[in-house]
Amino acid sequence: MRCKRCTEPAIIEIRRHRTSFCSECFLHHCREQVRRAIDKHRMIAPDERVLVAISGGKDSLALWDILLDLDYEADGVYLGLGIDDYSKRSQSFAERYADTRGAKLHIVDIPAEHGFGIPDAARATKRVPCSACGLSKRHLLNRAAIDGGYDVLATGHNLDDEAAVLFGNVLQWHVDYLARQRPMLPATDGFARRVKPLIRMGEREMAAYCVVKRIDYIVEECPMAAGNRHLRYKEVLNQIEERTPGAKATFYLQFLNEMLPHLDQVAAEERSMVGACSRCGAPSSQEICAFCKLVEKVG
Amino acid sequence: MRCKRCTEPAIIEIRRHRTSFCSECFLHHCREQVRRAIDKHRMIAPDERVLVAISGGKDSLALWDILLDLDYEADGVYLGLGIDDYSKRSQSFAERYADTRGAKLHIVDIPAEHGFGIPDAARATKRVPCSACGLSKRHLLNRAAIDGGYDVLATGHNLDDEAAVLFGNVLQWHVDYLARQRPMLPATDGFARRVKPLIRMGEREMAAYCVVKRIDYIVEECPMAAGNRHLRYKEVLNQIEERTPGAKATFYLQFLNEMLPHLDQVAAEERSMVGACSRCGAPSSQEICAFCKLVEKVG
Repeated sequence: MRCKRCTEPAIIEIRRHRTSFCSECFLHHCREQVRRAIDKHRMIAPDERVLVAISGGKDSLALWDILLDLDYEADGVYLGLGIDDYSKRSQSFAERYADTRGAKLHIVDIPAEHGFGIPDAARATKRVPCSACGLSKRHLLNRAAIDGGYDVLATGHNLDDEAAVLFGNVLQWHVDYLARQRPMLPATDGFARRVKPLIRMGEREMAAYCVVKRIDYIVEECPMAAGNRHLRYKEVLNQIEERTPGAKATFYLQFLNEMLPHLDQVAAEERSMVGACSRCGAPSSQEICAFCKLVEKVG
Repeated sequence: MRCKRCTEPAIIEIRRHRTSFCSECFLHHCREQVRRAIDKHRMIAPDERVLVAISGGKDSLALWDILLDLDYEADGVYLGLGIDDYSKRSQSFAERYADTRGAKLHIVDIPAEHGFGIPDAARATKRVPCSACGLSKRHLLNRAAIDGGYDVLATGHNLDDEAAVLFGNVLQWHVDYLARQRPMLPATDGFARRVKPLIRMGEREMAAYCVVKRIDYIVEECPMAAGNRHLRYKEVLNQIEERTPGAKATFYLQFLNEMLPHLDQVAAEERSMVGACSRCGAPSSQEICAFCKLVEKVG
């Protein structure tokens, strides 16, 4: 197998692009895919300050790496979720990467600042852990971006993640969730702009990127996520992809191109309903935001 | 296991409804589900004349049976597709049912009237057989309904069929197909109203209905459909249903409730582009309709 770009021996085949690459050309390909996503969806202007949400996993560290290589001014923020040993080890991968690159990493520790971890929150609210975790992340990452004066908050959601979320939303036709599932959500009162520059990259490519670039990351999935819905949806989509390479990218990217324009009005109506939480001032469509309610319940 | 309606021993469990029925109550349930679909989507008014598309399979014969039991004036039309022995046997099942019920069955034989069968059409056009077949059916069934002065054409598409088609359309976000995937398409110039009264009934329930009512039907799938996309999508959906009973009905019925209203304009634009075929006068968005093009190619 030869690199389709330079004819050197290839190290990876990407079936949905009907191509294969050597290490150097693969890194070039990754950067180009990210650049293309950023340009097409107007995610980040050249002089803007970016805050990258870092979990210590392959996607977020690779995203940070690519953004730095593309010369963006990109700092990281690590959110300590209080999931015992898993959180500690994740944090050390994040810190090690920041040290190596000489990049700035903010640490927000939920147990230290709010007195509880995600396992406590899940127990207290009887929510599935991923739900309590997701809402905490949305709230605290946004606050970190706003407080730090960043123009934009970037997360490492890749094509597989976004396709799985889309699949879940489509199975139940949550039209308001569909309308909001955009790779770039513009800044609104109290919300930093949120972007997902990895939407054109598969999970497998992100792992390969880290291997080639020698970025150490936490390989295990979060222990609390085991068996969650999205992991099942990923399996279903992988089956379809296996038979029809490119099916997953078509499913997600055609959604952006073909369906989302019909849901612009739904999204605008949603946005118009957002006020401010009476407790913390964060944007919320209810009097008290979901995070403050969570804090109250756990406490 | 007991019937949830009358406590007699049950013969079928329907997991997505969390219920089970004896024979009599199951038949009542089937009629009620069809009545509900007809009412909700204004498919058929009490005094209208219905033409039911009959393939000789379980769905179309059960549909005909239920419509007759619900006192609709319903005739059948059988389309001979020229698929050798399979077509002959299918036709005999259709005729036998019509005889038993003393119901009127029209026969339209494609090879006799147009000089070719579906296998020839597929070869000549290099289309997959299901594509040539589908377009021929749409054209000829509509013509039979219009020529016979029927108010409405009913087809036996069940929940599994519609969910699989929806799944295929969603995987590629064919927004115009999505906008058109309605259980009731109103009559327009040259098109009879088209309805799908079995959208609330699963494949398995339709087979059970025929067993209970002692309706003989052709059990084999069409030999030309083997391995087609929709059969694969049905498998995927069955996997999801297995884990989450009701997922399939939610997927399809929520699409009708939640998504379709956002696509009304797309559907209206589509309709406004339909003119008449210059050759046969049938409605078509192109100068010559797809069926006349097919006839030309095969001939």
